[in-house]
Amino acid sequence: MLHPDRLFPADERTRAIARELHRRTADLPLVSPHGHVDARLIAENRPFPDPARLFVVPDHYLTRMLYAQGVRPDELGVPSAAGEPSEVDGRTIWRRFAEHYYLFRGTPSKLWLDHTFAEVFGIYKELGPDTADEFYDHLSARLAEPAYRPRALFDRFNIEVLATTESPVDSLEPHAALAELPAGGGRRWGGRGGKVVTTFRPDNLVEPGWPGWRERVDALAAITGEDTATFDGFLTALRKRRRDFIAAGATCTDHGNLTARTEDDPKAAAEIYARALDGEATEAEILRFPALMLVEFARMSVDDGLVMQLHPGSNRNHNQWLYEGWGRDVGGDIPNTTEYTRDLKPLLDAFGNHPRFRIVLYTLDETVFSREIAPLAGGYASVFAGAPWWFLDSPEGMRRFREAVHETAGFYNTAGFVDDTRAFCSIPARHDLARRVDASYLARLVAEHRMTDAEAAEVAVDLAYHLPRKIYGLET
Amino acid sequence: MLHPDRLFPADERTRAIARELHRRTADLPLVSPHGHVDARLIAENRPFPDPARLFVVPDHYLTRMLYAQGVRPDELGVPSAAGEPSEVDGRTIWRRFAEHYYLFRGTPSKLWLDHTFAEVFGIYKELGPDTADEFYDHLSARLAEPAYRPRALFDRFNIEVLATTESPVDSLEPHAALAELPAGGGRRWGGRGGKVVTTFRPDNLVEPGWPGWRERVDALAAITGEDTATFDGFLTALRKRRRDFIAAGATCTDHGNLTARTEDDPKAAAEIYARALDGEATEAEILRFPALMLVEFARMSVDDGLVMQLHPGSNRNHNQWLYEGWGRDVGGDIPNTTEYTRDLKPLLDAFGNHPRFRIVLYTLDETVFSREIAPLAGGYASVFAGAPWWFLDSPEGMRRFREAVHETAGFYNTAGFVDDTRAFCSIPARHDLARRVDASYLARLVAEHRMTDAEAAEVAVDLAYHLPRKIYGLET
Amino acid sequence: MLHPDRLFPADERTRAIARELHRRTADLPLVSPHGHVDARLIAENRPFPDPARLFVVPDHYLTRMLYAQGVRPDELGVPSAAGEPSEVDGRTIWRRFAEHYYLFRGTPSKLWLDHTFAEVFGIYKELGPDTADEFYDHLSARLAEPAYRPRALFDRFNIEVLATTESPVDSLEPHAALAELPAGGGRRWGGRGGKVVTTFRPDNLVEPGWPGWRERVDALAAITGEDTATFDGFLTALRKRRRDFIAAGATCTDHGNLTARTEDDPKAAAEIYARALDGEATEAEILRFPALMLVEFARMSVDDGLVMQLHPGSNRNHNQWLYEGWGRDVGGDIPNTTEYTRDLKPLLDAFGNHPRFRIVLYTLDETVFSREIAPLAGGYASVFAGAPWWFLDSPEGMRRFREAVHETAGFYNTAGFVDDTRAFCSIPARHDLARRVDASYLARLVAEHRMTDAEAAEVAVDLAYHLPRKIYGLET
Repeated sequence: MLHPDRLFPADERTRAIARELHRRTADLPLVSPHGHVDARLIAENRPFPDPARLFVVPDHYLTRMLYAQGVRPDELGVPSAAGEPSEVDGRTIWRRFAEHYYLFRGTPSKLWLDHTFAEVFGIYKELGPDTADEFYDHLSARLAEPAYRPRALFDRFNIEVLATTESPVDSLEPHAALAELPAGGGRRWGGRGGKVVTTFRPDNLVEPGWPGWRERVDALAAITGEDTATFDGFLTALRKRRRDFIAAGATCTDHGNLTARTEDDPKAAAEIYARALDGEATEAEILRFPALMLVEFARMSVDDGLVMQLHPGSNRNHNQWLYEGWGRDVGGDIPNTTEYTRDLKPLLDAFGNHPRFRIVLYTLDETVFSREIAPLAGGYASVFAGAPWWFLDSPEGMRRFREAVHETAGFYNTAGFVDDTRAFCSIPARHDLARRVDASYLARLVAEHRMTDAEAAEVAVDLAYHLPRKIYGLET
Repeated sequence: MLHPDRLFPADERTRAIARELHRRTADLPLVSPHGHVDARLIAENRPFPDPARLFVVPDHYLTRMLYAQGVRPDELGVPSAAGEPSEVDGRTIWRRFAEHYYLFRGTPSKLWLDHTFAEVFGIYKELGPDTADEFYDHLSARLAEPAYRPRALFDRFNIEVLATTESPVDSLEPHAALAELPAGGGRRWGGRGGKVVTTFRPDNLVEPGWPGWRERVDALAAITGEDTATFDGFLTALRKRRRDFIAAGATCTDHGNLTARTEDDPKAAAEIYARALDGEATEAEILRFPALMLVEFARMSVDDGLVMQLHPGSNRNHNQWLYEGWGRDVGGDIPNTTEYTRDLKPLLDAFGNHPRFRIVLYTLDETVFSREIAPLAGGYASVFAGAPWWFLDSPEGMRRFREAVHETAGFYNTAGFVDDTRAFCSIPARHDLARRVDASYLARLVAEHRMTDAEAAEVAVDLAYHLPRKIYGLET
Repeated sequence: MLHPDRLFPADERTRAIARELHRRTADLPLVSPHGHVDARLIAENRPFPDPARLFVVPDHYLTRMLYAQGVRPDELGVPSAAGEPSEVDGRTIWRRFAEHYYLFRGTPSKLWLDHTFAEVFGIYKELGPDTADEFYDHLSARLAEPAYRPRALFDRFNIEVLATTESPVDSLEPHAALAELPAGGGRRWGGRGGKVVTTFRPDNLVEPGWPGWRERVDALAAITGEDTATFDGFLTALRKRRRDFIAAGATCTDHGNLTARTEDDPKAAAEIYARALDGEATEAEILRFPALMLVEFARMSVDDGLVMQLHPGSNRNHNQWLYEGWGRDVGGDIPNTTEYTRDLKPLLDAFGNHPRFRIVLYTLDETVFSREIAPLAGGYASVFAGAPWWFLDSPEGMRRFREAVHETAGFYNTAGFVDDTRAFCSIPARHDLARRVDASYLARLVAEHRMTDAEAAEVAVDLAYHLPRKIYGLET
């Protein structure tokens, strides 16, 4: 099932080189500077739920593909926004998923799942209608074992550090609990330098148009003891909250703005903030506020050293029917064209050459790989090209990323792989896939005599391990 | 001349897999759900004209390439708009073409023609100045034979169904004639379930800015007996005419709008329609009307089940001199950037999740493959990714399409190949090329252990045969 | 170090074909129709400076990569705009560069340099911290030898013709000196048909917003004896100056506009010109003037036969800190999206079908390769697709260019390679790289039976030699 040469180029000469390069990275610890695993999962260390709820229900890569063929989210147990009845029987959901598993042929989702079934759970069969029950029983049995608790898997996966993502108004209690927990080797499970760290993601505080924004601004005041009724107070509260996040291990922030637009104008930001609090901000102002805040966050990063990550370009909740029926993050997002050259200039004019500033750029619009991202990463000391993201986090997407970025920005202005996942059990599969694809790209360069074996070996290890540790500030 | 391994990857391991996958699809019937063959060609079944008028004069892929090197359309016998003298001697045109055949080296046009010369006409030489006359004589002799009449070739080509394209104001008489004609095996040549079916393409009725629009609106009234002086009457006439098209076998509509812009506002549509009839619509209104009509056609599709096809993004008649001298469709079109995420949202909000609605998206802007088309096809049950079109209907274009779309949308949200051609004799060559390219892509996935042989074999057959039949509603 | 099969595909079958194709082009003379070598270099024929000043200091590909990792331009000896102190010791700069040479692994910069070190200077080692001094000494020794003077290298490099780039207000004296100098074989070093020719690049006269514009307009008056206080006089002066350029061997113009926007409106141009001279042009007018002038230059080209080159889309001096500290052309430019279909239409409406007009289109936005450039080059007799430029002038960039352009425009509507460099010693490396990449693309087409060996052999020679000579008017 899981071929040792999977994802390597077919050409024998190149494959042999790829195999050798992958051998050097295969056992390196996993560094995961950006992802969406729930910190409580590790803190509470409870058994995982049934296979359907572990693998299918929360994974919008899977549910969206089935929906694209007419299987409704409720048939897959996705909880509806309005609490309407939805399939509750795990085995039924699992069978439904297995019937449609052929839809994923050749996709990264299937590569990740097949890897996980085999390497993590020891199932060496093909999932399908005939084997659905066998898989379900096998997986259920394994999940009941202590060796399949989150922290046991974390260690078995050889994860060195895993970053979660929290909003400033989220509780950091799970991280506090983890910080108390010894993890061996002089480390702790959480806190600064811990195995699980947080990431400061303030999107829901800088989007005045999102439902509940005003309540979250109040919650921020309550958490920090600052007066968020003024823009200065809002900024002070955010700065203070960043210190809490840093104490919970954070080395990074993350920003999921609709565009990469930035604007350096604190006075305008303060005015829009005031009008937004009064419910009087215009549509244009609501769109402008995140652009202004991005520069404010850059200003904070120069002070406190948090590395910025920017994930723009997702037209969220595009599928209105899915959004109304099942809420956010169920697979209804569609990318937009995204611009960086002009949009980031105000931020880069302000801080792009500051020795303490660092920003990692991601994109869902691969046209910017060679046109904007690589020249920016290869032209500003502060800018790094983030790993291919979401729809591009795939063998072909990663290959195109390397082919389009490497020749302009080199390898050392790229930030290394991030798994960006909430699917904890798939983390080893995702890193292995990325390491194989990078090994394959490097192998081609070696086979074509564009790099030496020795250079490629060093680059492979740097990409898999040293670069993400260094660029996301995880070396300490 | 025609190598059995043409278009397969060079790597021996991958080539062997591709060869085997192609073997499974090579003899499947040809399903052609979208094209521009004239229905009269099959209905009348007359001999084809001379080789120049069959192959060169009407093929703007060929005439544009020669024009790009300075050979004027009149030198190739293309009839001028004003009836000015043009080369009339077939052999002279053919020789001129043969002299410039080297311009097509490695292009799909040459691959199609070489295939057609060899497989359809039994010429196993290279066309060039030295062989021009030999080709001309050989082709002329064959074309005079009964075995080279359109219907004989249709059957020899193993075409299961061929869709033509007509405007609502075009006559459906050729289709009516075909519907009377038995075709063996209990089928008829035309009509519902026939071998030749029509497609409803209303572009020239929804573009008030095109010359003769008002006359066509009147013609629609005359054909349908409806009063098209009101927008309601116009819609009623279109709905009625769709029923005629369905009787003539149509399962699809087609829309060649300049952009993918859509708008759901029947009231605005009615107002613009009234102003356009009065000759008072503004430029902006003229551009807006097709966007509004796209949603009206979606509304009709939900009722009558016709599958929508959208072919946006062609800046038609870009070459003003060609247009003025030789009219439409002579190779003067140049693509524009095209946007789908925002532009299609109104249509998708209205019908994108309707179980009876289906739309196939094509593009001339390949930047949307991974950014918009694949996420839309993989996120809406109604949306399918259409085959690479026109300038992208080529080995490299098809490969990039698969590489960019497959990992997000899978194979089963893509609609399969359409040949989209008016060059009847090239149909087998075009399908064979597409099947070879898909076999090659699948072979790489197998060689890289990303799919199994068995999976790839099933997908190859689905792409070549089952998916187009299913998605374009041709299974009956 | 320099593998004879470098840049060829790994697959043995394809590699053997590529090797044979490259053999046919490897020793062809170098034709360089577009570049930035200083004509004085050849005219004065002085020894090159030390290795750091020859290779590192003026090469913004190198300095930008080091800056992207935090090495400031002054640490590399780049002269500051304000005359601030900067590293002056060549050896120190060289060592600093060698320490960071690993950043260029697999990039074209390293491929060019490694080729140059080996083939031009006879160093068969890897540059790095350990070998920095050895390289420096070896290179310094060679550079002191007469065989390493510019004209000796020019002949050793087998350069048939090299185009420099000058502004209308630049002195053509070096070219005049070269025109006096016999070059053997009945040719002269400069002048019409000479080995070194100029190119007319009027950017700094059509950008009223650039510092010193007014002074340059006055300088143009002084040089030509025309009254540039009126737009007519300005045009007359430019036309006159083009005759001087033609006498200095020019066959081409070059235009580095921010966009490809064109507008045919001499009256508007005259009005803006007058307002710009008075310092009263608006920002919009300043942006519009180059678009209007592009059509004026096309009008001149129809008269005097100079081939236009268009290099749009570079957002110059994007890095404000670099620009303020070190001025123009130090690596601070970032590309923008660029549009050609709509933007070029006014120019093409006016002259796109004129038999005496020719324009070569370049781009930094590779999304236009298949969408706009190839259809335009394959649809207008006057339009040719220029070689991949700057960030795209790389093995992967060139491959993508061929894959995206060839199938629509063929090979004969592409203009052949231009090295576009100021790094004189790297010219053979750049041409060799391009010839290898083209040989590899052609080899794949042959291996996949999409072209014959004989066709590919002819195309390879055409691309490397005949096409640039023909299209840039260098055949005389």
